[in-house]
Amino acid sequence: MDKVRFGIIGIGNIGTVHARYLLAGEITQACLTAVCDNNPDKHAAIRQLVGNDVPIFSEAQALLESGLVDAVIVATPHYDHPALSMMAMRRGIHTLCEKPAGVYTAQVEEMNACARECDVVFGIMYNQRPNPLYQKVKDLIDSGELGEIRRSNWIITNWYRSQSYYNSGGWRATWKGEGGGVLLNQDPHQLDLWQWLVGMPVRLRAFCQFGKHRQIEVEDDVTAYAEYANGATGVFITTVAETPGTNRLEIVGDRGKVVVENGTLQFWRLRESEPAFNARWDQGFGEPECWQVDIPTGPECSDHQKITANFAAAILHHTPLIAPGLEGIRGLTLSNAMHLSTWTDDWVALPFDAQRYLALLQARVASSQEKHVQSRTLDASGSW
Amino acid sequence: MDKVRFGIIGIGNIGTVHARYLLAGEITQACLTAVCDNNPDKHAAIRQLVGNDVPIFSEAQALLESGLVDAVIVATPHYDHPALSMMAMRRGIHTLCEKPAGVYTAQVEEMNACARECDVVFGIMYNQRPNPLYQKVKDLIDSGELGEIRRSNWIITNWYRSQSYYNSGGWRATWKGEGGGVLLNQDPHQLDLWQWLVGMPVRLRAFCQFGKHRQIEVEDDVTAYAEYANGATGVFITTVAETPGTNRLEIVGDRGKVVVENGTLQFWRLRESEPAFNARWDQGFGEPECWQVDIPTGPECSDHQKITANFAAAILHHTPLIAPGLEGIRGLTLSNAMHLSTWTDDWVALPFDAQRYLALLQARVASSQEKHVQSRTLDASGSW
Repeated sequence: MDKVRFGIIGIGNIGTVHARYLLAGEITQACLTAVCDNNPDKHAAIRQLVGNDVPIFSEAQALLESGLVDAVIVATPHYDHPALSMMAMRRGIHTLCEKPAGVYTAQVEEMNACARECDVVFGIMYNQRPNPLYQKVKDLIDSGELGEIRRSNWIITNWYRSQSYYNSGGWRATWKGEGGGVLLNQDPHQLDLWQWLVGMPVRLRAFCQFGKHRQIEVEDDVTAYAEYANGATGVFITTVAETPGTNRLEIVGDRGKVVVENGTLQFWRLRESEPAFNARWDQGFGEPECWQVDIPTGPECSDHQKITANFAAAILHHTPLIAPGLEGIRGLTLSNAMHLSTWTDDWVALPFDAQRYLALLQARVASSQEKHVQSRTLDASGSW
Repeated sequence: MDKVRFGIIGIGNIGTVHARYLLAGEITQACLTAVCDNNPDKHAAIRQLVGNDVPIFSEAQALLESGLVDAVIVATPHYDHPALSMMAMRRGIHTLCEKPAGVYTAQVEEMNACARECDVVFGIMYNQRPNPLYQKVKDLIDSGELGEIRRSNWIITNWYRSQSYYNSGGWRATWKGEGGGVLLNQDPHQLDLWQWLVGMPVRLRAFCQFGKHRQIEVEDDVTAYAEYANGATGVFITTVAETPGTNRLEIVGDRGKVVVENGTLQFWRLRESEPAFNARWDQGFGEPECWQVDIPTGPECSDHQKITANFAAAILHHTPLIAPGLEGIRGLTLSNAMHLSTWTDDWVALPFDAQRYLALLQARVASSQEKHVQSRTLDASGSW
């Protein structure tokens, strides 16, 4: 095989994005050979999108068993990600799951167990991981340039969404349809990058506000505080109602500091570590010598194509995955823990009881109201 | 009177700063006519500082009753601020109290009651209030340019202090001697500015860490989350162990955003308010038109001289105070609440029970250990 034949399950906002670049031939080792959407009302519009040569299925199983695809991108509403991914993996179809991996960790644990049993490539669409800015931050941390991590702070409030966005789909921003709000839909990239860069906390305390700015059931404003095994602390702040939003990540180690904001990376490096300076300094006031360093990075880039191309290369040539599917549970663990901390108005120690979370989620699902709105596909270009 | 005759009670790090600019004649409407320090071992050094014409007292009462002063700056360790201020006010001496107003709100309530009874000018050394940057932020908020406040975030970690700083005085950073750490000693300006700009919260949840980075009893690392009556949220992050530290204040309203960092103010202004845009927008993705505005400000400046000159002008000409002494309780209320939230591992609603705080503080004071170190005066220039 010299090209991986891709199917896409779910042709909504993001499925449309994947279809377009695959159809445009932007990924040399991939082509689009089938799509699936369980809403027949959309098939005429999908036909316009994919042309006459790509079959359109209404049932995922039929697509997976058609013999037309080697791999699928699962781009449905979040709740269905694990079940559809497992359905694909069990049929030997390589699976690239959209974020989030699922809605609650119990279902993602099951998906991960399935992935370990199946001989397929399993990836997750964390298209911010290959962003050169975050790659460089990861490099600075892994190579010890920042020293031991002391504190992180991510203000990620540039996910502005108007009420009309929420009204574009009845499932959106409901407990039943989506299982969460900004944490589940907009923030999975940042939650993943946060843990990818500074690790998983040992406990956190979060303050989610539900339907504060928008007429939705789920959280639209969150502040979370996290503590790590080495004593480091972290803060994560997000909302959909701020404009102009902020996207500023600061990570402080005992040898330096890095800030990613406005598409640039700023790096300060201490000539000696803070503890070493503190141990020898006897003058009261004073700080170690610090260099502000211009460090080369590529321009900010979060193309989905990079993840899809890497995934195809993993299938064809065993190239290591940038975003292994098994790691999808980590960011979800953070968002589930933030809900749980708010619902219980208490600390959540990690790992938490996945069944307890599920029970509390299900109580909300039971009283969840689907919005009665006209479903429509929005142009999501530039929205991730 | 054409010049206010000042005394200074307490000639430590900061009292020395006040003495220098008064002696240098930098404040045309003020002069230094007496000083007091209760440590006779320091009097020889103080004589070097103030020259032969300024009497040095060992007892505050003797200075206050000497007839030599119209006003005093109280620059002793924090616990003594209220008692010494009251002693001065009851003798008709105008009183400019160093920050913090005191260590616990119960004693500051008493001081404020005294101030209301005495016919003197009562100020507090909040020398960041006249800083042109914060003056402009205050102007933007008060004039409605930012709209209704939604969120604030202050990362104020550029208070680096080495262990040798803490070892410079036995009282420093002990519950008995200082009654707190970074919140009481370094952050009073930011805590005051925070409430001056965005108001007082209705409740907060704080995470103080005590003696985490330094061998001290009190907090050296704090993250606090606050909620306001209108639904706004805020985060305040501080530590003494980060280098290079950050000092970044972000305030978001429903008409714009302001960021103060690196001595500059950035201002973004929406052409229509976020709620107005949200109400009319029907296109899903999209944001209101936003202007990044270059707005003139004077250069950053936090000279104590401005507060002292304003205080003298208030005495001589009834000029309104930039920092009325009665407002000193607000920032202290925030820091007490942050301690209390940590000690009780719970929310603190404001106003809290001042006696409960005092009881919990006294329990810590009872087991507090003065450090056995050689006391010395450090050069504090540029440290505020």
